[in-house]
Amino acid sequence: MRILGIDPGLRTLGWGIIDSEGSRLSHVANGQIRSEGPDLGARLLSLYDQLRQVLLQYAPEAAAVEQTFVNKDGAGTLKLGQARGIAMLVPAQAGLTVGEYAPNRVKKTVVGVGHADKGQVMHMVRLQLPGCEPAGPDAADALAIAICHAFYGGAARPELREVRA
Amino acid sequence: MRILGIDPGLRTLGWGIIDSEGSRLSHVANGQIRSEGPDLGARLLSLYDQLRQVLLQYAPEAAAVEQTFVNKDGAGTLKLGQARGIAMLVPAQAGLTVGEYAPNRVKKTVVGVGHADKGQVMHMVRLQLPGCEPAGPDAADALAIAICHAFYGGAARPELREVRA
Repeated sequence: MRILGIDPGLRTLGWGIIDSEGSRLSHVANGQIRSEGPDLGARLLSLYDQLRQVLLQYAPEAAAVEQTFVNKDGAGTLKLGQARGIAMLVPAQAGLTVGEYAPNRVKKTVVGVGHADKGQVMHMVRLQLPGCEPAGPDAADALAIAICHAFYGGAARPELREVRA
Repeated sequence: MRILGIDPGLRTLGWGIIDSEGSRLSHVANGQIRSEGPDLGARLLSLYDQLRQVLLQYAPEAAAVEQTFVNKDGAGTLKLGQARGIAMLVPAQAGLTVGEYAPNRVKKTVVGVGHADKGQVMHMVRLQLPGCEPAGPDAADALAIAICHAFYGGAARPELREVRA
């Protein structure tokens, strides 16, 4: 099964695609989309168009988006919500059901602990997906979300490589 | 100029369309869209599809969306943000620039005071748009946003009817 993971953000949206076959995971592609435009509508449209292009190019069969941290910064939460709306819409439009995973569940699945930093996530994503070079921390997070969905959302659970620190 | 106003919400999204010609405003249509679906992706897609239908049917030339209250309820702000992302995307996709107005500016324009309640907004919308029967409070708010955009976003300012309480 081909899985798209998305780490939503209004400025930068990370995406990552993996194939999960039986207990094996392999890397397909990843990237970071930057929103462009003079106003919010144009920036959301820019995210929408670029993310649609990713779906058209790689034809994933499942998708998962990070459940967003809701913090005390209401304006930041609203911005993230708007980007997340686009991140949920595009796969739904392609007929995919969209899984949602809390950030600490993603980290616990991929790194082994819920409070891993971005460097650890990057390291473990590289380890789980040999040959993969994430385009940046948001792309690495997106790949981690895809791995999490392969583990919890699919029929067969992949064997994740364990590393003791 | 034909103006679409949108009052975004994840459960119910209000919309209203008016024509603004010189100093005259007239009502075209209004309604409330309910999101349906088993999960968030499906509900956002349902909002998207129904709002696109409104744009296809009435072909507005300008659009405005309410700037959302950012409150202490982070989860509520996130939900609203997701719906607002769709509300901004659909007109942008149709090539419209999307105006944004704070709720108290909308109320001050239409009712005369910034802290008007929903009943006052409904009353003044009916007064400014003779013959208009809003489908509900969210549709009335959407029409008020469209009136506000006619007043601030267009070249010619309509003459709003004044009422002294």
